[in-house]
Amino acid sequence: MAYKEKYPSELLSEAVEAIGMLPGVGRRSALRLALHLLKQPSENVHHFTEAVNRLRDEVRYCRECRMISDEETCSICSDRSRDHSVICVVESVRDVMSIENTGQYHGLYHVLGGIISPIAGVGPSDLSIRELVSRVQAFEDPASAEIILALSGDVEGETTAFYIYRQVADTGVRVSSLARGLGFGDDLEYADELTLGRSIVNRQVFRP
Amino acid sequence: MAYKEKYPSELLSEAVEAIGMLPGVGRRSALRLALHLLKQPSENVHHFTEAVNRLRDEVRYCRECRMISDEETCSICSDRSRDHSVICVVESVRDVMSIENTGQYHGLYHVLGGIISPIAGVGPSDLSIRELVSRVQAFEDPASAEIILALSGDVEGETTAFYIYRQVADTGVRVSSLARGLGFGDDLEYADELTLGRSIVNRQVFRP
Repeated sequence: MAYKEKYPSELLSEAVEAIGMLPGVGRRSALRLALHLLKQPSENVHHFTEAVNRLRDEVRYCRECRMISDEETCSICSDRSRDHSVICVVESVRDVMSIENTGQYHGLYHVLGGIISPIAGVGPSDLSIRELVSRVQAFEDPASAEIILALSGDVEGETTAFYIYRQVADTGVRVSSLARGLGFGDDLEYADELTLGRSIVNRQVFRP
Repeated sequence: MAYKEKYPSELLSEAVEAIGMLPGVGRRSALRLALHLLKQPSENVHHFTEAVNRLRDEVRYCRECRMISDEETCSICSDRSRDHSVICVVESVRDVMSIENTGQYHGLYHVLGGIISPIAGVGPSDLSIRELVSRVQAFEDPASAEIILALSGDVEGETTAFYIYRQVADTGVRVSSLARGLGFGDDLEYADELTLGRSIVNRQVFRP
């Protein structure tokens, strides 16, 4: 009853609860958003919910690099003008977008889908590391190939970089990591484009 | 093309655009929310969008007070234990919820659906003022009835209060306004419950 007193309508209460599940959206913001949506034309609200549903239901991931893609192979992997002898290894889809925005990188990517974190219970097998190793082993000329470990500069990032390094060390492929123009512990996602671009250009041989 | 470069997928780009239409959600937050929704189980996302669609499509407003309601008459208007000789006039649905949360008020409400604002192009006819006047005229014993103008303490609020006062002045109904325990210019929506509750209890005769 206390619940019903708080919201004048079940519909509103359910919508506020659903919107409040979004990260960073508290109860008060959720109510504000719900009341905002109520004031919008019906077709705008439907457009919004359809875009969200379609994203969730129809999204695909590139079978090469695991990037979000509308096709089986993403536009980066299928771009013949890019350098297919370099793979930049990142944690997430967002990291690919950040690096693309710098305009400084013209190779391929590999999205791990997370980072090794014993605390969060994420191990190597939860990530697409095996697929990465297969791609590295498939390089026609390993001596002229390279993988760039573009992971965040925190403990999990370093651990993941070290794990991957050991997996590919005997392939003869050059392994580099981002130049630490980024402060130690900085999150890759929040770096400005200039710093991040410089880190790509000045990447260094990985020496664990 | 610059657009496609920014987002790796049309689906993602459309979802980010739709989410970015929400008030207070910038492009970066919209992307974060979209990628969060991507990681959720499909049924959670559908539950979210259905709750939003149902709110927009099935919501009803009380035919008496214009409050959001699941029935034709809201739970407050149909509550016989409440004082039907007092109507508290507010700008929005949220204001009703704020006042209900104080637990200090036991009369009825009237939701105007906005406030008179020449700058925003909102005039008296855009609000439910005529319906309010009808309700006031329908009081069986005007001498013992009252309307409380619970509007924000800014210029628009004062203007609206004055307009309503003139409309009902000749009915013999007592017109009061919130005690200004609220600082002048404060927004009703952000007041703490203690201050707002006191303003209801200490309401004063409206003297324009």
